[in-house]
Amino acid sequence: MSTKHRIIPLGDRVLVRVAKVETKTKSGIIIPDTAGKERPEQGVVVEVGAGRTTDQGVVITPKVRPGDTVVFSKYGPDEIKIDGEEFYILSESNILAVIK
Amino acid sequence: MSTKHRIIPLGDRVLVRVAKVETKTKSGIIIPDTAGKERPEQGVVVEVGAGRTTDQGVVITPKVRPGDTVVFSKYGPDEIKIDGEEFYILSESNILAVIK
Amino acid sequence: MSTKHRIIPLGDRVLVRVAKVETKTKSGIIIPDTAGKERPEQGVVVEVGAGRTTDQGVVITPKVRPGDTVVFSKYGPDEIKIDGEEFYILSESNILAVIK
Amino acid sequence: MSTKHRIIPLGDRVLVRVAKVETKTKSGIIIPDTAGKERPEQGVVVEVGAGRTTDQGVVITPKVRPGDTVVFSKYGPDEIKIDGEEFYILSESNILAVIK
Amino acid sequence: MSTKHRIIPLGDRVLVRVAKVETKTKSGIIIPDTAGKERPEQGVVVEVGAGRTTDQGVVITPKVRPGDTVVFSKYGPDEIKIDGEEFYILSESNILAVIK
Amino acid sequence: MSTKHRIIPLGDRVLVRVAKVETKTKSGIIIPDTAGKERPEQGVVVEVGAGRTTDQGVVITPKVRPGDTVVFSKYGPDEIKIDGEEFYILSESNILAVIK
Amino acid sequence: MSTKHRIIPLGDRVLVRVAKVETKTKSGIIIPDTAGKERPEQGVVVEVGAGRTTDQGVVITPKVRPGDTVVFSKYGPDEIKIDGEEFYILSESNILAVIK
Repeated sequence: MSTKHRIIPLGDRVLVRVAKVETKTKSGIIIPDTAGKERPEQGVVVEVGAGRTTDQGVVITPKVRPGDTVVFSKYGPDEIKIDGEEFYILSESNILAVIK
Repeated sequence: MSTKHRIIPLGDRVLVRVAKVETKTKSGIIIPDTAGKERPEQGVVVEVGAGRTTDQGVVITPKVRPGDTVVFSKYGPDEIKIDGEEFYILSESNILAVIK
Repeated sequence: MSTKHRIIPLGDRVLVRVAKVETKTKSGIIIPDTAGKERPEQGVVVEVGAGRTTDQGVVITPKVRPGDTVVFSKYGPDEIKIDGEEFYILSESNILAVIK
Repeated sequence: MSTKHRIIPLGDRVLVRVAKVETKTKSGIIIPDTAGKERPEQGVVVEVGAGRTTDQGVVITPKVRPGDTVVFSKYGPDEIKIDGEEFYILSESNILAVIK
Repeated sequence: MSTKHRIIPLGDRVLVRVAKVETKTKSGIIIPDTAGKERPEQGVVVEVGAGRTTDQGVVITPKVRPGDTVVFSKYGPDEIKIDGEEFYILSESNILAVIK
Repeated sequence: MSTKHRIIPLGDRVLVRVAKVETKTKSGIIIPDTAGKERPEQGVVVEVGAGRTTDQGVVITPKVRPGDTVVFSKYGPDEIKIDGEEFYILSESNILAVIK
Repeated sequence: MSTKHRIIPLGDRVLVRVAKVETKTKSGIIIPDTAGKERPEQGVVVEVGAGRTTDQGVVITPKVRPGDTVVFSKYGPDEIKIDGEEFYILSESNILAVIK
């Protein structure tokens, strides 16, 4: 993360750099249907929270890792801008899949 | 999955290749009533997540396997396109049955 | 199940062959009030899922068995057609009673 | 239960024979206010399910017994007719009290 | 309870004799604001259920006792009449406080 | 509590004497924005329930003590009057903070 | 906290001093999109509750510490003013990330 500050997500949250449109289309792999507003979106994981602590006191460590390219549900993420670049903070439960 | 990339679903999610209409009708087995929009749909499982981790720390491994032909509830799945082909990412809990 | 394919319900789901109207009335036993759309319906269990796995990792085996005549809530079941015959896939929790 | 068939409720459900109006009023004990549609109703338990199985795998045996006269919430029960007589199938959680 | 019949509430339910208006005001202690329809009401506990059984199989015994004067939320109780007198059957969770 | 009667809250409930306006402003400490109707309110704890019993049979003892000055969410409390003075009965979960 | 009084949040709640606009922009790090009303907001943690007690009797200690700069969801926090300065009391679950 090439910024002076570091954003550490809390719990099961993940900081995701939103993929630019040209990134999404260049290899032709994932092309979410742009007509459907609720179609999932693609990005790269930048930071991962330590995991949520359940009522039983169990810490559920997130499965995604920084650098993972992920597809996530557009519903619900919080958007922030860092040095003019858009990021999402979203719960790992909103990440649908990792692209390898 | 004959693509250059692999989509690994997270948690209890499953990647399903949507059955083409001709596939559904050729053996005459499953014909969802086309009049009802909420009737279940048919597809083939391509990738399966590692399972969801419950609050007790138990990992519930999905029961479906890649290659399974499944009937699933159309309600809720996320749609993505890979090399122009439509796939669904859906929770295993939305899969109603396996066809053997 | 006299079809070439077998439908294996997932989790706590049950495949039910919907009772024909003449079956319901011939012994005069169960006559759901036809005026009320939400009255329960009758059918015969064809296939039973292996049971749902709870968050504690416990598998709850369904109590109904193939061949059981059941009364079920019409709310919620998914309908599929197999060789032109209508079936329901429904959660065992929507089955109200077994008729012996 | 003077019928040729037996209705075995599933889980925590209970089969209740709805009390006739003259039964309710003859001893003058329970007279639900007829003006309020949501007032509780009275009946006699005919059959009792084996109990619901919780996520922990515990079976919660119903407390009511066949023959118990019960007051139950009218909200939610499923109605069936057996040989022309009206019965309710309802969850034990909708039974408010037993009349002794 | 000076009636020929006894009403035994089920689970965490409690049978409460509704306080008459003169009872409420004579000692001047509790005067719910009559303008607010959702203000709590006062009564005397007559019968107490054996307690609810939780999913863990634990029975939670109610804390109130017959004879307790209680303040309860008017939201949700079921009303019944016994020999012309009005009673409420309500969950102990709707009882706000005991007046000593 | 300078009354002839004592109000013992049940479960996790707390009896709170609502702070008069002059009390709130005299030390200038807490001034909820009066424009916002849903802003929190201030009061003094008078009585505390024994705690709620969870489904696991654990009693969660309230953390607040009689005499604590508290800030609480105005949403949801039940209001009662004792000898003409207004009190709130509210769940401890609606208490936001203690002022020391 | 340079006030005569101390506000101790209850449970998993956190007292946050809302960041002034000039603070947010001077290092250019976090600039929530001001067009979106539901965009997250920034502040500094002043006081932290002892943690919430779960139904299992486990106390979940908050991860944030006094002095942490945090980004939090604007949805839901209670606002109070102390000596004319605006503070939020919010659940730690509404804190999205810590800025280091």
